[in-house]
Amino acid sequence: MGLRTKEQFLESLRDGREVYIFGERVEDVTTHPVLKVTAETVAQDFAITELDDQEVRNLFVLPHPETGEPMSRYFQTPKTTEDLKKRKEMISRSILLTGGLPFGKDIGTDALNAAMVVAQQMNKPEYGERTKNYLEYLIRNDWTLSGAITDTKGDRSKTPADQAHPDYYLHVVDRNKDGIVVKGCKMHITAAPCCNDILVLPTRNMRENEADYAVSFATPSNAKGIKFICRPSRGERSPNEYPSSLPIRDLNEAMIVFDDVFVPWERVFMCGEWAYAILLAYTFATFHRFTAVCYHIPIVENLAGCAVAMAEMNGIANEEHVKDKLINIASSVEIIKALAQAATLSPVMHGEIAVPSPLITNMAKLHYARGYHEVIKMVQDISGGIISTLPTYRDWENPETRPYMEHYLGGNSKYTTEERLRMVAHTHRWVASAESAHQEMITVHAEGSMETQKMMIMVEAPFKDYRNLALMAAGVEIKD
Amino acid sequence: MGLRTKEQFLESLRDGREVYIFGERVEDVTTHPVLKVTAETVAQDFAITELDDQEVRNLFVLPHPETGEPMSRYFQTPKTTEDLKKRKEMISRSILLTGGLPFGKDIGTDALNAAMVVAQQMNKPEYGERTKNYLEYLIRNDWTLSGAITDTKGDRSKTPADQAHPDYYLHVVDRNKDGIVVKGCKMHITAAPCCNDILVLPTRNMRENEADYAVSFATPSNAKGIKFICRPSRGERSPNEYPSSLPIRDLNEAMIVFDDVFVPWERVFMCGEWAYAILLAYTFATFHRFTAVCYHIPIVENLAGCAVAMAEMNGIANEEHVKDKLINIASSVEIIKALAQAATLSPVMHGEIAVPSPLITNMAKLHYARGYHEVIKMVQDISGGIISTLPTYRDWENPETRPYMEHYLGGNSKYTTEERLRMVAHTHRWVASAESAHQEMITVHAEGSMETQKMMIMVEAPFKDYRNLALMAAGVEIKD
Amino acid sequence: MGLRTKEQFLESLRDGREVYIFGERVEDVTTHPVLKVTAETVAQDFAITELDDQEVRNLFVLPHPETGEPMSRYFQTPKTTEDLKKRKEMISRSILLTGGLPFGKDIGTDALNAAMVVAQQMNKPEYGERTKNYLEYLIRNDWTLSGAITDTKGDRSKTPADQAHPDYYLHVVDRNKDGIVVKGCKMHITAAPCCNDILVLPTRNMRENEADYAVSFATPSNAKGIKFICRPSRGERSPNEYPSSLPIRDLNEAMIVFDDVFVPWERVFMCGEWAYAILLAYTFATFHRFTAVCYHIPIVENLAGCAVAMAEMNGIANEEHVKDKLINIASSVEIIKALAQAATLSPVMHGEIAVPSPLITNMAKLHYARGYHEVIKMVQDISGGIISTLPTYRDWENPETRPYMEHYLGGNSKYTTEERLRMVAHTHRWVASAESAHQEMITVHAEGSMETQKMMIMVEAPFKDYRNLALMAAGVEIKD
Amino acid sequence: MGLRTKEQFLESLRDGREVYIFGERVEDVTTHPVLKVTAETVAQDFAITELDDQEVRNLFVLPHPETGEPMSRYFQTPKTTEDLKKRKEMISRSILLTGGLPFGKDIGTDALNAAMVVAQQMNKPEYGERTKNYLEYLIRNDWTLSGAITDTKGDRSKTPADQAHPDYYLHVVDRNKDGIVVKGCKMHITAAPCCNDILVLPTRNMRENEADYAVSFATPSNAKGIKFICRPSRGERSPNEYPSSLPIRDLNEAMIVFDDVFVPWERVFMCGEWAYAILLAYTFATFHRFTAVCYHIPIVENLAGCAVAMAEMNGIANEEHVKDKLINIASSVEIIKALAQAATLSPVMHGEIAVPSPLITNMAKLHYARGYHEVIKMVQDISGGIISTLPTYRDWENPETRPYMEHYLGGNSKYTTEERLRMVAHTHRWVASAESAHQEMITVHAEGSMETQKMMIMVEAPFKDYRNLALMAAGVEIKD
Repeated sequence: MGLRTKEQFLESLRDGREVYIFGERVEDVTTHPVLKVTAETVAQDFAITELDDQEVRNLFVLPHPETGEPMSRYFQTPKTTEDLKKRKEMISRSILLTGGLPFGKDIGTDALNAAMVVAQQMNKPEYGERTKNYLEYLIRNDWTLSGAITDTKGDRSKTPADQAHPDYYLHVVDRNKDGIVVKGCKMHITAAPCCNDILVLPTRNMRENEADYAVSFATPSNAKGIKFICRPSRGERSPNEYPSSLPIRDLNEAMIVFDDVFVPWERVFMCGEWAYAILLAYTFATFHRFTAVCYHIPIVENLAGCAVAMAEMNGIANEEHVKDKLINIASSVEIIKALAQAATLSPVMHGEIAVPSPLITNMAKLHYARGYHEVIKMVQDISGGIISTLPTYRDWENPETRPYMEHYLGGNSKYTTEERLRMVAHTHRWVASAESAHQEMITVHAEGSMETQKMMIMVEAPFKDYRNLALMAAGVEIKD
Repeated sequence: MGLRTKEQFLESLRDGREVYIFGERVEDVTTHPVLKVTAETVAQDFAITELDDQEVRNLFVLPHPETGEPMSRYFQTPKTTEDLKKRKEMISRSILLTGGLPFGKDIGTDALNAAMVVAQQMNKPEYGERTKNYLEYLIRNDWTLSGAITDTKGDRSKTPADQAHPDYYLHVVDRNKDGIVVKGCKMHITAAPCCNDILVLPTRNMRENEADYAVSFATPSNAKGIKFICRPSRGERSPNEYPSSLPIRDLNEAMIVFDDVFVPWERVFMCGEWAYAILLAYTFATFHRFTAVCYHIPIVENLAGCAVAMAEMNGIANEEHVKDKLINIASSVEIIKALAQAATLSPVMHGEIAVPSPLITNMAKLHYARGYHEVIKMVQDISGGIISTLPTYRDWENPETRPYMEHYLGGNSKYTTEERLRMVAHTHRWVASAESAHQEMITVHAEGSMETQKMMIMVEAPFKDYRNLALMAAGVEIKD
Repeated sequence: MGLRTKEQFLESLRDGREVYIFGERVEDVTTHPVLKVTAETVAQDFAITELDDQEVRNLFVLPHPETGEPMSRYFQTPKTTEDLKKRKEMISRSILLTGGLPFGKDIGTDALNAAMVVAQQMNKPEYGERTKNYLEYLIRNDWTLSGAITDTKGDRSKTPADQAHPDYYLHVVDRNKDGIVVKGCKMHITAAPCCNDILVLPTRNMRENEADYAVSFATPSNAKGIKFICRPSRGERSPNEYPSSLPIRDLNEAMIVFDDVFVPWERVFMCGEWAYAILLAYTFATFHRFTAVCYHIPIVENLAGCAVAMAEMNGIANEEHVKDKLINIASSVEIIKALAQAATLSPVMHGEIAVPSPLITNMAKLHYARGYHEVIKMVQDISGGIISTLPTYRDWENPETRPYMEHYLGGNSKYTTEERLRMVAHTHRWVASAESAHQEMITVHAEGSMETQKMMIMVEAPFKDYRNLALMAAGVEIKD
Repeated sequence: MGLRTKEQFLESLRDGREVYIFGERVEDVTTHPVLKVTAETVAQDFAITELDDQEVRNLFVLPHPETGEPMSRYFQTPKTTEDLKKRKEMISRSILLTGGLPFGKDIGTDALNAAMVVAQQMNKPEYGERTKNYLEYLIRNDWTLSGAITDTKGDRSKTPADQAHPDYYLHVVDRNKDGIVVKGCKMHITAAPCCNDILVLPTRNMRENEADYAVSFATPSNAKGIKFICRPSRGERSPNEYPSSLPIRDLNEAMIVFDDVFVPWERVFMCGEWAYAILLAYTFATFHRFTAVCYHIPIVENLAGCAVAMAEMNGIANEEHVKDKLINIASSVEIIKALAQAATLSPVMHGEIAVPSPLITNMAKLHYARGYHEVIKMVQDISGGIISTLPTYRDWENPETRPYMEHYLGGNSKYTTEERLRMVAHTHRWVASAESAHQEMITVHAEGSMETQKMMIMVEAPFKDYRNLALMAAGVEIKD
């Protein structure tokens, strides 16, 4: 069927899915005042591929290797450094083009790529077949899919089988010749209520007695028994907010309840192979942290831009301490960019599939997660208290108060007061709002918290090489 | 008249003051859906002094040194370490008692204490008289007052006299035998729309040609020409929010426009003594940063508590990395407490007035401002993504979704799911919400940004003593 | 016998003790080119109490509570905040007076004070008696003693009883009616080869099967079977080094071998009470970390002085980045001072004995250990490369090269070139030499590494109070 | 003449040069007990090119582009990413091959490459000719050369022309038809006393009245009027030190006095073009900081190795806090490696010459300089106090003490005690010795202090791009 239009995509979300927010069932996610922001944001993926700009199209669309039909680059299984670079550029570029992250295929294909890698390892040809078929299905329908990995986990000091009830981790409760029935709940799933399918992976290693928890599959979002309960995100721009050149982009998270959901065998990619659960979780983590690094770059570039613009508008750009902070912010940005590039240069090959360097990818994610709050602090510092105490746009529009705001809230005369206030409001959104606080949380927790990156660095770093270098220099025999 | 009741205080705010928010004039700040939260928070100061608890009363109330009538301890001009300690305890305690900061006398008396110190220095007995009379007026009426210091500043690379127009810093535009007329705008003024009076100080040093900017005075909030334009703060708890045992406490900031406001001479505390403007600003800064350190302590204790409770409820309290983070958070809390105490132990005496150690006070403020975002990051890390993605309380109340939330969102079985979710919601408010983002800004900018603390440390630290110690050890003669 | 003279002390070290360094047995530690520096440094304790200065004498000497005879303040068992303050001042002052740390009674009395605390707990009157008698013995002889705590520990993943041989932790190998025989080796013992006695404590918790390792006692340094093997410290000033106004002060560490050493019962303070080993180690740690904070203050004050002096001499004192670094260094210094003071204000009382606040003491030690390298880096940065590349004093004395050095190595003309070079050499010693590297190690490891301080903060911090505060605010019942 | 042998190189240093150290003139740097270590270290460059290993030879040697004769790769003017990568590998590899940095051509060719870039800009063909001729001369003779940039600078608050005397920056004092005469002193010049030539560059920007200070040239090290006064470096391994498999490698710094030194015109590369002085200094800085990043990599790999080996030998490799530190060290190492690679990928082309990305190169240098002390602290922490208090090798050889050391100083039984002690001694050398302290200084100051890297990042970072991104998003017109 080739590429879909934005309208076709939005239409496909009106499929009877069971979505809740603010205590109510949502009839249509594309018209709900809050959820439509997510729907519109995800829909930008299709708006981009509808663009005439040939250079953009070359980045986001490529011909199907067999049929030659145009398909989204998200569906390209990466095989080379070049493929990874293109994916990186596509993700970063999508944000610059739309002002948000059209997150309808990123995490899902990260998950599917991981499932393909693990299918090879498990040595069960049917899994390989199914993942390939599923990819073709996605391509054929230009389908969106969320990736559902994190379970609710209950008491984290207990393993899945030792919890107060068996459902804190999603698991198989029944199976027959047609398929399996699963129960559980996946948490923090980004964009989930506005994607066509859900791809489920296990979130951790499993032990032998937890084979039922080692399960991976895809399912339509409107399958019977699936319920989305959404977090209260911000919705559209209010009349209090200063206008900007970009519409509001935002992505809703949801907890997804799987209440005895049936999945046919052709959509099952792991079922009981407990020893491979960890490999699947790890491989996904690498793919997805690479995605995270890619989407984080425009975020910190924008933060850097807020700092530079506010410094200029406040008339403090030549203060030594401000320059010092700008330099630190820039270093932070450019180091992340250099690491993202480095991750593409030394992929780990699994058969034909190129996985971005797990070591560098995890270091890049850890590096930015650790440093993000410090960047926020510097932007807050440079911008001044006004980004937090600025009266609303309705006060700007009120003829009783606007003249005072006009007169008193100017800065560097290169810009008008209104221009300064727009910049103040933009910066507020990024460093001093409910959204910016949520972004801090995303930086800390999305794609796994910092401790999970450390675990992978512990596995991947060449500690033995370091050690042998030192032993050799010290004149000590190397014994293993 | 002695101590007022909470009702008397609220009644006194219905005085025709000109307040704007969300593009509209506010008729009555005590009933406005957003501003009433501030009014109620400030009113807690009076609720506390109405309490029967003798120990509390002893902390917040003391007899007038001459009349013996009960008066608020905020009106005690500190003369000893003991006075500073009591003030510290009173501020910290007020937060624990009410769940917020009843900020109706803190900053105003910080400003008045500074004005008293500088009145001594300026060697003009009338200023000393007026500040004392004003203090008696405040005591007599149990009056609240905001402190208005920060000007809007225009282009910060320019001094007051060099700006695009003369009003970026508040200044005297006329004077006659009865008083002065002032014009300008003060920014970020906390609790201002809900205090009785405003005490104005200059925000920086002034040069000889800027004598009109060296002005300090008090004025009623409803004086002709004064307009408050308020930032959009959060207002009351919504039905989406989980209940807690405490009402919402919050303080609104406003920009205060002084549109040719008349001030009679008996309320003028500086007028033209440009050489003393910096001393007034600095002395105020020390008093007020001490206040800040006092009110910051319960904030970080609460943050520490969120981390401990969430670690326990998530079942991760015994993880080594969690313990490491808890230790770091506790060190951060206890160091601030130790520094607050130290600041009271070595006050600088100006005549009879005890100013908390400027060196230690500024170090304490700098220390916590620098470290706050790191604490936030650790609390976010320990708490888990749920504090940001939890569905609303209305979803909890919805019988369709509550059973799923009950079943899937439990943690450590020592607590019920509802208890955990209340704690999650409380933690969300403190580290992942619009309020928490605003608190980050307050930590960075309120009472002066970190660079202003550094400026004072540069002046106050015993650099010459350090140097002489080293010169002596090196065998080099000391030459100044 | 009252206070000894410096000469009497040095004479007492010529007692046949078995000391090794650089592959050779040392005949007389007071004349050995390297060890005499330690002997002289320790001897300063006696030089101070010989001073006529009454104010100094009042600080270092006090009358015996019973006999009224003068005794060293180190032998005062602290009972009040005031006692702890005096001890703090004495330690800091001793460094300023002598240019080094006369470490002949500090650690030993820290150990003895801990032994006294634990004697009370163990409920065995004989231990209380013996520690008191031993204290009187020390007073009577104005005796010096090292504190030997750290064992060599072998493979640290194994407990004492599980090691490859039983001697990795010192233990009792025999006991009879007269006393006990011990075997083992204590490591990194500061000043040990130049003290009269050794006081031994266990270094960690012990289990029931490790009762023989729960042993504490005092012994003369020349007891049969005791051998000191010393680290190669720097010795006296060489002709290459620039002169300064102070002689070289340094303290040698040694490993002390106990090769079946007999200890009479009256010097045994713990023997088999394995459950109390940890209490003894912990109580000692608090006392000794308090000592460490006290002696660290003059060290960082001197470092701050090097930075200020070098900034001035290099002509960079007005650079913004230099001021920023000086402010950071000063904050570091003054926070440590404030914490040291705070530790005295809230002692924990064990019977009559005042232990400095374990929470604040451990935080203070952790705080400075963490920040020390950053301070060093800033001093190195400000001082410039010359502190590392300056030619020797012999080049300054060589008439062929001195004129070039004179001409080219000047700085700020307020100082002569020679004055600058003396300051450069002094700073080199403190931040760019073998000594400064050793000081980094001392900061990290002496008095226990940072992880040991964290362990105690984990125990001592009011985590439950924090938590209850947050639970209460969140409306959650407190269950323990 | 092609490649020289190590012996030919050493012989060439016996040329009458005027070298001083420890107050004495040095007859022969190749036999002096201290300086011969530097001579031997530099000589390793020739030892490497004498190796038979073809892979090594391919890295270090390439055919002259015209004559086809073998020449050192240091003399290859980089024209591509590939050339920069090879240079990077060569530098890192030279350290692994020899245990030290054979620093006879690195900095000199960095300087010459910069001179070539600037010769193009100055638009004076003779400078281009001379730099090319000089390169051919270096190739023909397989010559070593130091790079002399940093002046002594006097009072740094003053520019060259405003100093107390004119010689604080090297300058031209005379010129005639044959050449120029220069006077001044260059400071901290690494390996200088053991290189054949010296290449001099200006160290900073110059103003019009400082044209005589804008001078660049090459000169033989034994030219009349040149004097080297050397810092007191460590010299050979002493009998106190534990043996290792590698000889001691070290590089001496010297101050180089130019006492009216004549330089013929064919060796003059800048003379009076004051406006280009800063470009020359900056271009050199980029080339040389790239070199620094390359040589720093093996240093931190070795540090990481010390940490891993000591953790293993101490039996603490499975402690959580140790793993956390190892992860941090590894991240530090691998980020530097990724940045070094990134710097080669986006060179700035000046004509045919490829300069490593100035932005990334400076960020890489800043990143490692900032983080180095933290790495040192972690290695010290993991290694334990023993690395600082270990008795000497002579105590190990002493039959009286060795048995005790053997018995008590063992660790993880996988290694013998002697193996552990060798590792301890190696680690001591790297993190707790005079050498390690000097390495800290090198990290801070060599190739310019951190502030100089910040200056270049301020110039090179895409601040305007960041800003425009933010302005655009905020809906504000871009005005420049």
